[in-house]
Amino acid sequence: MNLSPFFHARSIVIVGASRDPKKVGHVIFRNLLDSEFDGEIFLVNRNAGEILNHKVYRSVGVLPSRPELAIIAVPAPYVLKIIEDCGKKKIKHVIIVSAGFREVGNVKLEERLARALKQHNILCIGPNCLGTFDAHSGFDSLFIPQYRMKRPKAGGIAFVSQSGAVGSTILDLAAEDGYGFSKFISYGNAVNVDESDLLSYLGSDKQTRVICLYIEGLCNGRKFLETAKEVSKKKPVIVIKGGLHESSSQATLSHTGSLAGDKEVYFAAFRQAGVLYASSLDEMFYYAKIFEYSTSPSGSRVQIITNGGGFGIICADAVLSAGLLLAHMHKDNCRALEKALPKIVTIKNPIDLAGDATTERYRIAIEYALRDENVDMVIVILLYQTPLITADIIDVLVEASEEGKKPLVVVSAGGEFTHILKENLEEHGVPCYTFPEQAAIALRGLIQYYSRAK
Amino acid sequence: MNLSPFFHARSIVIVGASRDPKKVGHVIFRNLLDSEFDGEIFLVNRNAGEILNHKVYRSVGVLPSRPELAIIAVPAPYVLKIIEDCGKKKIKHVIIVSAGFREVGNVKLEERLARALKQHNILCIGPNCLGTFDAHSGFDSLFIPQYRMKRPKAGGIAFVSQSGAVGSTILDLAAEDGYGFSKFISYGNAVNVDESDLLSYLGSDKQTRVICLYIEGLCNGRKFLETAKEVSKKKPVIVIKGGLHESSSQATLSHTGSLAGDKEVYFAAFRQAGVLYASSLDEMFYYAKIFEYSTSPSGSRVQIITNGGGFGIICADAVLSAGLLLAHMHKDNCRALEKALPKIVTIKNPIDLAGDATTERYRIAIEYALRDENVDMVIVILLYQTPLITADIIDVLVEASEEGKKPLVVVSAGGEFTHILKENLEEHGVPCYTFPEQAAIALRGLIQYYSRAK
Repeated sequence: MNLSPFFHARSIVIVGASRDPKKVGHVIFRNLLDSEFDGEIFLVNRNAGEILNHKVYRSVGVLPSRPELAIIAVPAPYVLKIIEDCGKKKIKHVIIVSAGFREVGNVKLEERLARALKQHNILCIGPNCLGTFDAHSGFDSLFIPQYRMKRPKAGGIAFVSQSGAVGSTILDLAAEDGYGFSKFISYGNAVNVDESDLLSYLGSDKQTRVICLYIEGLCNGRKFLETAKEVSKKKPVIVIKGGLHESSSQATLSHTGSLAGDKEVYFAAFRQAGVLYASSLDEMFYYAKIFEYSTSPSGSRVQIITNGGGFGIICADAVLSAGLLLAHMHKDNCRALEKALPKIVTIKNPIDLAGDATTERYRIAIEYALRDENVDMVIVILLYQTPLITADIIDVLVEASEEGKKPLVVVSAGGEFTHILKENLEEHGVPCYTFPEQAAIALRGLIQYYSRAK
Repeated sequence: MNLSPFFHARSIVIVGASRDPKKVGHVIFRNLLDSEFDGEIFLVNRNAGEILNHKVYRSVGVLPSRPELAIIAVPAPYVLKIIEDCGKKKIKHVIIVSAGFREVGNVKLEERLARALKQHNILCIGPNCLGTFDAHSGFDSLFIPQYRMKRPKAGGIAFVSQSGAVGSTILDLAAEDGYGFSKFISYGNAVNVDESDLLSYLGSDKQTRVICLYIEGLCNGRKFLETAKEVSKKKPVIVIKGGLHESSSQATLSHTGSLAGDKEVYFAAFRQAGVLYASSLDEMFYYAKIFEYSTSPSGSRVQIITNGGGFGIICADAVLSAGLLLAHMHKDNCRALEKALPKIVTIKNPIDLAGDATTERYRIAIEYALRDENVDMVIVILLYQTPLITADIIDVLVEASEEGKKPLVVVSAGGEFTHILKENLEEHGVPCYTFPEQAAIALRGLIQYYSRAK
């Protein structure tokens, strides 16, 4: 199944293009103009005319050439006619953003749509969806204005969402928080391209390092699990599932018309398929971040290095609560480290570099921890409120992280000053968390994935 | 025990004031100058001279009048001498920020300090602490420059921290996130003012609506529990405890020299004392926010109102996972609401106002939910990425919240646009969360506290 044109089409037609800035068919066009996308854009509206100085064609039939992809934003009753036109024009990929199908009870209309698509051999994302966004190619079919919803920068996280609202909100939040995305897909009613097809495609997508899915029900459970099993051998697949509880799953019925099933059945299936289950949206982000940046750990022994005693203790608690172990550094290594650092430093786990910790103290402690055979992963707590840490701590951490032999994460909580530090670190591939608990959960996810994948 | 001068002193002496901008005795002075504090400031340094155009006295003894409070920032070995001077000058309150006592093994020096304080009838916060900050009076003894650590705005949250690092980091983060604080105290080694004394004081402090404590060990467990029991009848007390696990509690020994004990013992004691236990720093913030703003709920039945189906489902899951109930609105009310809203709206729980929800739809749904006898609390999910919500949604929410009959919280995830909305809402007393799980945890805390307090 060739899904590539949904992300890399070189020519596009927007059917239902509109002059009215509030209309979906206008917003999509304007977003494409504002985006990095530099392919050809055709506009179709039965009233023809001009929009933002671009010619509007009266129908798909009269277009001067065949666009690779059609984005359809006309009311549901007109969609079938447009599909016929696309079929005749040999367009093989369409995104239908229009709502008004199965999700509002129009099952028959959706069945007719499915048949029409099959007849013309057309692949379709939607209906009732936001469509796709590719942060690398710049392609963007989302009909939300950029001032209301930022687009994330290019990176390795793919996000697939049945729900448009969950999808768009996550995208906006991720952009704000500096996460890097490869592709985003809101697939709605999944009339002939479903979550498994998308998962399979992303599994082979070179720009995607980690795949996140928000699902309510599954179109085809067996197909999904078989696909997930294969894909999760190649890269981590993180799933968040809406409608876990019996009474909450009632709501999914009216939402996308798919049935959310029994919680335990889903959990067991996810485990079997090697899929990482995120119990909340925050947790999904903690995982996505660590998988985008980190390497495989050799075990679950964590060394903590801190300049705040209290934060170190909270972190040790969090590490143990997450089911990880506190590393015991090798005795010889401890003794050597003791000599290399001032007396005020406590060489235990956590290593407490004290409130007057310098960048140099961090450099030494990190170096010793990373080379210790009893340490599998390192959490560096960096409280930037203390006076003697200088900006070159960024170089120390990036260098340590770039060696890439052991996962290393940074915990840093604070205001603007801290934000700048974190942005810098993440741009250079060092995952940063605000609280120790978040780092511990992320490392647990890393262990879970790599121990299954083996 | 009169602790008031630690927050409201009208005249202060900084002992160990310094010309060197990096020194603690300089930073404290500069912070006080930059703060809202408008009392008298004396400087003492044995070299005398001038600092930032302010006269420096050679000793406490030669000061022209008696300051209400001394902030002592001289090396540990000189502290006893300063206490003698303060005693002779009849100063009754001192903050000792200097480290180098019990926490580094100097138990004897600390014992001598305790005796000297007792002899002169002096109350002391510290040693080995950051001291106090009062967001209402503007008083600030913290020796961290404001560019490294923001100070939060005035509000109702008091935060007491044994650890200076945890305290300062939380303060910085809280300032960035717009939380309002009443008082902040980092009390360090607690030589004669301990967590219970502070708790008791804050219990009667009019500006404090909710008290958060970070503790590692307790100086006097029985005293703490008795105090907490009394105070938590008046206002919520939230505790986060470092050193929960046996192996992590090893670290607390070297950190503040207090012994962190058995986890279950602490949990049982907290329950008995009516104290709300926060299992992570995030959780503490979720609680603090809801207690600062919300009223007592009459039960645990939650009505969800959303403009994103998927977020509604996630929220229903979160409500049930937190042990709360999904409300069933009264049939007559449902019927009336159905008539008042367009057909596309689903009147269940969640009430799904659909992606084209307008401010008016929200207004109507919130009004019906708040007056329904089967609804105790309301979660309003507001995805601001959708096009038809206008800025006056803020008025609707603030008005609904100001009626104050039932707790109402908002869930809103997104980028800059959403941030502005949230800031506005919180300034008007409507608590906002990013993810449904966070709101559900907060409401659970509300129920826990008020059902205990009854």
